[in-house]
Amino acid sequence: MSSMIGNKLKVSIFGESHGGAIGVVIDGLPSGLEIDMNFIESQMERRAPGKDSFSTARKESDKPSVVSGLFEGKTTGSPLCAIILNEDTRSKDYSYLKYAMRPGHADYTGHVKYSGFNDYRGGGHFSGRITAPLLFAGALAMQVLENYKGILIGTRIKKIYGIADNSSFEENPETVVNIRSMDFPVIDQQAKKLMQHEILKAKEEGDSVGGVAETIILNIPAGYGEPFFDSVESKISHMIFSIPAVKGIEFGQGFNITNMRGSESNDPYYTQEGNVFLKSNNNGGILGGITNGMPVVFRTAIKPTPSISKLQETIDVSTMENTTLQVSGRHDPCIVQRAIPVIDAAAALVVLDLIMEREGEIFFNKTKGDI
Amino acid sequence: MSSMIGNKLKVSIFGESHGGAIGVVIDGLPSGLEIDMNFIESQMERRAPGKDSFSTARKESDKPSVVSGLFEGKTTGSPLCAIILNEDTRSKDYSYLKYAMRPGHADYTGHVKYSGFNDYRGGGHFSGRITAPLLFAGALAMQVLENYKGILIGTRIKKIYGIADNSSFEENPETVVNIRSMDFPVIDQQAKKLMQHEILKAKEEGDSVGGVAETIILNIPAGYGEPFFDSVESKISHMIFSIPAVKGIEFGQGFNITNMRGSESNDPYYTQEGNVFLKSNNNGGILGGITNGMPVVFRTAIKPTPSISKLQETIDVSTMENTTLQVSGRHDPCIVQRAIPVIDAAAALVVLDLIMEREGEIFFNKTKGDI
Amino acid sequence: MSSMIGNKLKVSIFGESHGGAIGVVIDGLPSGLEIDMNFIESQMERRAPGKDSFSTARKESDKPSVVSGLFEGKTTGSPLCAIILNEDTRSKDYSYLKYAMRPGHADYTGHVKYSGFNDYRGGGHFSGRITAPLLFAGALAMQVLENYKGILIGTRIKKIYGIADNSSFEENPETVVNIRSMDFPVIDQQAKKLMQHEILKAKEEGDSVGGVAETIILNIPAGYGEPFFDSVESKISHMIFSIPAVKGIEFGQGFNITNMRGSESNDPYYTQEGNVFLKSNNNGGILGGITNGMPVVFRTAIKPTPSISKLQETIDVSTMENTTLQVSGRHDPCIVQRAIPVIDAAAALVVLDLIMEREGEIFFNKTKGDI
Amino acid sequence: MSSMIGNKLKVSIFGESHGGAIGVVIDGLPSGLEIDMNFIESQMERRAPGKDSFSTARKESDKPSVVSGLFEGKTTGSPLCAIILNEDTRSKDYSYLKYAMRPGHADYTGHVKYSGFNDYRGGGHFSGRITAPLLFAGALAMQVLENYKGILIGTRIKKIYGIADNSSFEENPETVVNIRSMDFPVIDQQAKKLMQHEILKAKEEGDSVGGVAETIILNIPAGYGEPFFDSVESKISHMIFSIPAVKGIEFGQGFNITNMRGSESNDPYYTQEGNVFLKSNNNGGILGGITNGMPVVFRTAIKPTPSISKLQETIDVSTMENTTLQVSGRHDPCIVQRAIPVIDAAAALVVLDLIMEREGEIFFNKTKGDI
Repeated sequence: MSSMIGNKLKVSIFGESHGGAIGVVIDGLPSGLEIDMNFIESQMERRAPGKDSFSTARKESDKPSVVSGLFEGKTTGSPLCAIILNEDTRSKDYSYLKYAMRPGHADYTGHVKYSGFNDYRGGGHFSGRITAPLLFAGALAMQVLENYKGILIGTRIKKIYGIADNSSFEENPETVVNIRSMDFPVIDQQAKKLMQHEILKAKEEGDSVGGVAETIILNIPAGYGEPFFDSVESKISHMIFSIPAVKGIEFGQGFNITNMRGSESNDPYYTQEGNVFLKSNNNGGILGGITNGMPVVFRTAIKPTPSISKLQETIDVSTMENTTLQVSGRHDPCIVQRAIPVIDAAAALVVLDLIMEREGEIFFNKTKGDI
Repeated sequence: MSSMIGNKLKVSIFGESHGGAIGVVIDGLPSGLEIDMNFIESQMERRAPGKDSFSTARKESDKPSVVSGLFEGKTTGSPLCAIILNEDTRSKDYSYLKYAMRPGHADYTGHVKYSGFNDYRGGGHFSGRITAPLLFAGALAMQVLENYKGILIGTRIKKIYGIADNSSFEENPETVVNIRSMDFPVIDQQAKKLMQHEILKAKEEGDSVGGVAETIILNIPAGYGEPFFDSVESKISHMIFSIPAVKGIEFGQGFNITNMRGSESNDPYYTQEGNVFLKSNNNGGILGGITNGMPVVFRTAIKPTPSISKLQETIDVSTMENTTLQVSGRHDPCIVQRAIPVIDAAAALVVLDLIMEREGEIFFNKTKGDI
Repeated sequence: MSSMIGNKLKVSIFGESHGGAIGVVIDGLPSGLEIDMNFIESQMERRAPGKDSFSTARKESDKPSVVSGLFEGKTTGSPLCAIILNEDTRSKDYSYLKYAMRPGHADYTGHVKYSGFNDYRGGGHFSGRITAPLLFAGALAMQVLENYKGILIGTRIKKIYGIADNSSFEENPETVVNIRSMDFPVIDQQAKKLMQHEILKAKEEGDSVGGVAETIILNIPAGYGEPFFDSVESKISHMIFSIPAVKGIEFGQGFNITNMRGSESNDPYYTQEGNVFLKSNNNGGILGGITNGMPVVFRTAIKPTPSISKLQETIDVSTMENTTLQVSGRHDPCIVQRAIPVIDAAAALVVLDLIMEREGEIFFNKTKGDI
Repeated sequence: MSSMIGNKLKVSIFGESHGGAIGVVIDGLPSGLEIDMNFIESQMERRAPGKDSFSTARKESDKPSVVSGLFEGKTTGSPLCAIILNEDTRSKDYSYLKYAMRPGHADYTGHVKYSGFNDYRGGGHFSGRITAPLLFAGALAMQVLENYKGILIGTRIKKIYGIADNSSFEENPETVVNIRSMDFPVIDQQAKKLMQHEILKAKEEGDSVGGVAETIILNIPAGYGEPFFDSVESKISHMIFSIPAVKGIEFGQGFNITNMRGSESNDPYYTQEGNVFLKSNNNGGILGGITNGMPVVFRTAIKPTPSISKLQETIDVSTMENTTLQVSGRHDPCIVQRAIPVIDAAAALVVLDLIMEREGEIFFNKTKGDI
């Protein structure tokens, strides 16, 4: 039961890196939602490899085909399935990895869990490539949130290998949308250069780096989420840790809140023209697991790409002996910029599910069908 | 659908701070498990308030009564329900909080979500008190894991208001168990004094502080968990963010891994006598969402107790005007030490669920009943 | 994972016949619903034993205590837990049943599943007594459906031991409600006498009989339910087969529809004043798994009470030898009339869940809390 | 949330009759299971239309492509997705059905639920064609049950339009398997002729008939299932009512048990060589929701195919006026024989889920992968 998530909106992803196809089934979408495939493809394009020197030169054809759930450009209310055929897979690149376990990857844990029957080629179902169908589903959710609820989601690179962009994200809501059009979404252009420098340096050395992404969800009203087990933090973190390479998440001030006094960290309320606001957003828009009307803000720690060209110590599971491994082929010296649209998408799926949990299938004022 | 969690082992908590009772239903426990109520009560005692000057002087009778699912000291296989009656609740303490929303608490978000019908007394269902039944369920899971699988879980205070205990936790496995007997579980005694000093200082000023807890799960074999949506990180973070006041979680090196190169963060494998080990544990015992045989290590950021005696700005939801609020009564100047056994318990519930997902209801070699 | 059901409205029952208490947790109820406990208790009274000569003389105190989720007579939105303490249990009546498996009961299957650790006294968690908390939850749902949606549910005895009441139920909607006030809810008084005669005859002979219940759900609009796995029939049947002793269910014409031609069984549509009606209701108000606006009609087959006084052949699981068994004590010669309010309640839970799936937590126009 | 089912083994179907493709995702399959695609295709062939005069002449290419989860002939443990491309769909046949609601079909209920946005062509997602991917998943489960657990499932036609086959099914276990090779699986050849005669008579008149299927599950041991909400009857009925046209289900003696006394319907136990047996099987192999070691037996009522050539009264949803409708094109005069392998498959999915619930992912002794 590995690959399904959601309460009202159920998302199920499938596929292996070098299998016939990868894809996603989205079950529970209301009917009558207009879907703009161009928007979805533009988001998927952001994740696609081979665009510049900061990511792998490997090309993937991430063109999705919708085979169900869409009729005359609108959702039918039945499960929507999108499929991406696998191409340019070069299986022979990976054959030598059948027994030598790549450190930092899921090779060994997958080998144990699946008793050696997993498809080891390219990481199989553990491959970052499987985030493409997740991105598809989430980009669809993003446009539904924007068009029907006015909710905007954006993610920027906050840090790469210790280089931070200290400019404010939350206080510039327009950047939340603008940032989506950047290939390397950093606000402070000076920090951007330093980050890219670190990536290229690591690349030259056959090594890799990671970083921190910061996400903001704007215009989500107060009252969504649940106390305890379906807290907004619980649901978002569950989803975000599904993305390969994520090792940490924090909301609002996050770990830094432990350096504050309660009198500082408590966000004071005030009213203006009958509306309720908070003077600060240390809690990242969530109190008691429920949105408070402020932007939801979270940061995600993404580890250095485990695929590196350097010689590494490992084991051979066929002989159960120690060995070394040098992963040849095309690698991402940094995966953070490609993970950004996946995080956007993942967050959008959670928010749409939250809304549907509260408002049901009929959460938006749709006009009736063509009759 | 706020208060249920788990795939195979379903835990459902109920109750409000000042209602008739709080409790928990655990559904899916195998039959024939011997339960030592003394161990459970000793864990609950760790959370109980009123023990020392670092927590509130309020007394709570947290004595649980098991009303089903236990027969002659062993689980029956039917849902196990434990109930804790509410006493010493002093409802009048809270009456003035009906309309004035306490900053940092769930008063306002609960008010919006439940349209003003929530039980506002003492935070109602949002109260930290509702972690007592969660702790009950988790302490039960802890002893099942220890007795039937040899899996040990322990949590220590890593940081309070910036004061860190830099001694190693992971490398001293015996402390994982020993630390449970400490009221204030810090390994480095010098750090402990400084932390306690900070708490008392905050208390004197009517303020509060938070901190970071570090949890270690020992002896969990490789192969548990799932790729993507039921990754071990996903399941643990989902559960941990259910605990009030948690604002961040990280596994292994966590956020610090973004300061490393891939060649450093990748944990190399080696074999010894046919067993597989890793030379480091930067990934916190989890790769691709699945345990790798190393200890699972995570850290939890806990915010300063939102209940403080200082004057705070807020709103009155009956008049929708700005107002100020001074929360009288007995507060915890720091909640971290009381949250420690709750984190242990929460982690235990996840681990038991992971094991049952893989091994079913018959995961242990139980001897047949008395016939 | 035995005892939870529901998508949006989750119901979890617990307890054993002779344990400390039985009860139910209802998770997902919207806040602000006015609950009339008298109505709930009047429904529970209908199931209570000891009322007349057609059921067991055993008395049970089925008085429920609500310990959470209700505040000032309205739901809080948090889990609502109701508890019924066990009294008058006479454990010694059952001690000889520890090893001798009663035919027709779950003694043997429970013994195998739980490896002999189940609480055998009075059937433990398998006892019909555990339907009391289910009835509590369902009676609560019934009044919510009536008060906020105008949906009415009623169940009558259609058949006892081959004696049928051939009067129409569906065409007399007022009887749907009136029938609830009858102890032995049969419409045709002549059939009623014959049925009761059969029950008493069986009782005299230490034997038992079963029958068929017919349920009607009025005023449920078209459009609820799902194609395939959450069809209305799927959800109702799943719930109804949870009630002990149920062996069959059919919707509309049910099994009899297999004796019809398509031209007869297809229910023709017609419109009147802009509304859509069907000229017949052979499909029992459901097409493609979704309500069509007609009354939902189903019939439930209930087997003869397995507890009889006659000598029966069985096995002793301690010696694994053949033996005989004579069940002494107080038995129900017929359980159908006591099952009637449980079926009502079970159906109500499904309907409320269907509505909340579609319309969310905010399915009714509630007035805001007292501010 | 229409189209997913299962606790441990999750099955998700998608597709519309005239969309791009239909398919299924099976999530939770253990790794290393050998899959024989020929067996699956032979089962799918049984459902395929166009074989003889008893079903529609319409041809469908039901050739499934497995795009994930299978590697070198064995399951990988990752989600298995199979896709069937839609061909020979003749969309224009259905264009006139956009507004005229076919009686007995889901046209109207789908129209209401999806506000007119559903894909009306050929019934869209409600089409019986969507049972093809369900059958795929279930046929896979059937062979896993047979090969790894020795559990056999077979379904026969018990009745067509009142003509019954009174020969015993349960007492001839070998027929359980043999019957699968029959196109029209009736045991009594005389009854078979009469049934086929009725079908052809209805066909000539542009009408249709239905019938009753009887299913038997052999060699399922005692102890599977749950009390109350996951009773075996609950799970099987939930699944079976997902199949279009099903209007009733009964287990063991089913509705007939209401004509028996308790002393007749209780199945007596006896032991022989340390094993436990029952002298009769009135309860259909299930007591208290749990298997008792006897064959699980159930019967399913299938209504006459709603598609008939006769003139029918209905409404036009564009004008909201009364109209008449004559459904042209190729119809099944009887759908029962085509539903038989779908029922087999559906039952197999439930049984495999039951086993995995109890025994986990590692329920069978698999040999390790090729290392």
